[in-house]
Amino acid sequence: MLTYSFEHVDGPIYEHIYKCIKGDILSGKLKPGEKLPTKRTFARNNSVSTITIQNAYDQLISEGYVYTVTKKGYYVAQIRELTALPPVSCKISYDIDLPKAPDFDVDLSGNDYSPENFPFSVWTGLSREVMSTQKSELMRVSPIGGAAALREAIAEHLRSFRGMMIDPDQIVIGAGTEYLYGLLADLLGNDKRYAIESPGYKKLAQIYGQRGIRCHYAGMDSLGIKVDELLRIDADIAHICPNHHFPTGITMPANRRYEILAWANEKTGRYIIEDDYDSEFRTEGKPIPTLFSIDACEKVIYMNTFSKSIAPTIRISYMVLPVHLVKRFYDKFSFYSCTVSNFEQYTLAAFIERGCFEKHINRMRLHYMRKRKRIIEIIKSGDFCRHCDIMENDSGLHFLLRLHTDRPDREVEELLAQRKIRIKALSDYDLIGGDAPEHHFILNYSNITPEKVEKTLSILAEILTGQP
Amino acid sequence: MLTYSFEHVDGPIYEHIYKCIKGDILSGKLKPGEKLPTKRTFARNNSVSTITIQNAYDQLISEGYVYTVTKKGYYVAQIRELTALPPVSCKISYDIDLPKAPDFDVDLSGNDYSPENFPFSVWTGLSREVMSTQKSELMRVSPIGGAAALREAIAEHLRSFRGMMIDPDQIVIGAGTEYLYGLLADLLGNDKRYAIESPGYKKLAQIYGQRGIRCHYAGMDSLGIKVDELLRIDADIAHICPNHHFPTGITMPANRRYEILAWANEKTGRYIIEDDYDSEFRTEGKPIPTLFSIDACEKVIYMNTFSKSIAPTIRISYMVLPVHLVKRFYDKFSFYSCTVSNFEQYTLAAFIERGCFEKHINRMRLHYMRKRKRIIEIIKSGDFCRHCDIMENDSGLHFLLRLHTDRPDREVEELLAQRKIRIKALSDYDLIGGDAPEHHFILNYSNITPEKVEKTLSILAEILTGQP
Repeated sequence: MLTYSFEHVDGPIYEHIYKCIKGDILSGKLKPGEKLPTKRTFARNNSVSTITIQNAYDQLISEGYVYTVTKKGYYVAQIRELTALPPVSCKISYDIDLPKAPDFDVDLSGNDYSPENFPFSVWTGLSREVMSTQKSELMRVSPIGGAAALREAIAEHLRSFRGMMIDPDQIVIGAGTEYLYGLLADLLGNDKRYAIESPGYKKLAQIYGQRGIRCHYAGMDSLGIKVDELLRIDADIAHICPNHHFPTGITMPANRRYEILAWANEKTGRYIIEDDYDSEFRTEGKPIPTLFSIDACEKVIYMNTFSKSIAPTIRISYMVLPVHLVKRFYDKFSFYSCTVSNFEQYTLAAFIERGCFEKHINRMRLHYMRKRKRIIEIIKSGDFCRHCDIMENDSGLHFLLRLHTDRPDREVEELLAQRKIRIKALSDYDLIGGDAPEHHFILNYSNITPEKVEKTLSILAEILTGQP
Repeated sequence: MLTYSFEHVDGPIYEHIYKCIKGDILSGKLKPGEKLPTKRTFARNNSVSTITIQNAYDQLISEGYVYTVTKKGYYVAQIRELTALPPVSCKISYDIDLPKAPDFDVDLSGNDYSPENFPFSVWTGLSREVMSTQKSELMRVSPIGGAAALREAIAEHLRSFRGMMIDPDQIVIGAGTEYLYGLLADLLGNDKRYAIESPGYKKLAQIYGQRGIRCHYAGMDSLGIKVDELLRIDADIAHICPNHHFPTGITMPANRRYEILAWANEKTGRYIIEDDYDSEFRTEGKPIPTLFSIDACEKVIYMNTFSKSIAPTIRISYMVLPVHLVKRFYDKFSFYSCTVSNFEQYTLAAFIERGCFEKHINRMRLHYMRKRKRIIEIIKSGDFCRHCDIMENDSGLHFLLRLHTDRPDREVEELLAQRKIRIKALSDYDLIGGDAPEHHFILNYSNITPEKVEKTLSILAEILTGQP
């Protein structure tokens, strides 16, 4: 007769009984086909209610350990013998040892983002307002392209800020450009040949690589990516940053723009991905018109993100598809949902519509211009100016520092890393080899203080001169 | 000599001059190599300041329309002739005609979500609190696995609610299960053979299909997916819902669970994806222990989402990887960022930690149980009960209605759709053919009112009897 101890029972009694019986079945103490006591007997013997036993039996039945025969009672089911299962010793028990992000005192690579730059009070206010006034909209699942309200706000922003005349339905909103690159690759076809710029972002090749796409690196000259490189590669898709190339800072001039568009138009299936990641912070002159807006033949897919212009951690990016790709996109992907939360889509829509985005950008642009000026002054006015040239590149959140040294770039980086300073050289972005000059370092000033610049310069001077 | 009209100028003068000159260059009025007037002459002739002309020239230079020769002046650049570009008439100008979501008065397919069910006031409060107290955390980019705070909260929830003992580092957070399925497929390999259940979700095959993966449909019996089907298919990966299969409602019993685990363990590279999409709302008994928790050999990847338990529009899902896959995951994907916004990750972490999630689930479970009871009563107590059988399936947010009719399922659906009622039949989920009985309709009651049920029943009666 089944009896179990009820001492030290933690949780409901039925659960305890269920566990005891299950344990006995798994250990073989209760054999397949064996009849279990009736609920009444079992309850009496254990001084619990029949309801408790009923609950325990129900649970065992629903999990398949026990079955009932009408008017006969409860029986132990034939479950696969535990011995047929691999022994528990096959448990692979090494520790999880996740790669840790290195800890730097000064990060000149621009990975950092200061909380001071984020418009917390406006954002919190709008977010609260949206949650109290747009409840139904917030609960309605957005199509893969994103909530209409946000697409309309972005279309209007692009019209007034970038001179782009588009239909909001051409916009696709996604959780970060990395996600959108993959989605776009699925749309254009993973059998296509991709060209990416060198120097440029190695990460692009990794992202496309996840789709089984091998990227080919196209060399650049002072006007940007070279058309003969695209022809050499026999590229179908050119992924480029014509408005402010990273890290060189090149803005592609009009003649090269028309050449690239003509290249795309020579063959069906050729497209240009125009990555416009930081146009908002061009500090001088009018923003350059986009390739998209001078493209008459629907060859350009425009990409932008709010990572740079608002914060990297809100994860909202978008692309603008040429009209003929919109239909193909929805034919292929309408079963997906948008990857961005409605809460943030509606908050961002309000942020743009109310003019807060424009104000924020203007404020940040001014902030970055002042910072740039201040930091260049620090470099020029100090001793360190003997060891370097400052190479301005007109826009964006960085400039280049050419160091007077023979030390290889990797060595300089390593020596600085030992002092907890992260800096990247232009040559880190050289994907072909020989495309980027040595000794040019990228100084992203978006999130560092003058004090940190001074500290960096004094450590750099030590490294270059060998004197502390 | 260049002179331009300044009447009706809208915007800065320099921009107007820049546009005029650019237009003349593009139209050919100004020829390549032609010298432009000096700033001073130009300024005097047009009665504007030299600074204005300087700004216009700078913009033209940065876009490549004009170049300077030191001490000589400004010249029109050689840009590719516009005639070499395709004529504007190649602009494909058909209208964008996006598929519109059909508009239903009653939706029994469960696609709808009522704003009343979302804990707006708690969520708004936590969200505001997070934004005012965790500014630095919010601005720190989360690794691909997600913010540590949320992973820890989920691990603790899984421990107490699902009895799963895991390290938070095993958790990967992503913007929706659709996204995570793709990421997981990239991890396990797109050359693998996938088995999915029939009846089941066709969408799974579409999502995997985007990765070039062809899915194979595995038949089920009353215990769930059949192991001989997995062998027939020669599957590497079985994507299953063992805890509450949709739409049949089957809970896989222990013996079949051990059989499936044994199948997975027979060969390296075999894995089971355990999709536990609605375990929180199992209305009767204790939640079934997960396959993951009885798996001693690291063969199960556990997946869950907050779409069902909180709201479909917040787009937060997660998966739990076996330990040995964690390292592989980070080796492969650490260059990605997490696709979920930090704002929502930290808000959700607080929502779980403070016990609000548990309270919310309990409240909703009770709400759904009452609703289920009420709706079943309505059906049983009315005239319509002569035309159908109610087939309960113990858990989840739906039950089945077997209609006494000879009309094909598609016809019933179509007739209802004409009356603005959406309902799905079990046979809609039959992916092999012949796997699901006819005349079984899925009644998802999560978001409908008793009135809507009554309306549906009376229209159904008309359709079945042919009498209004």
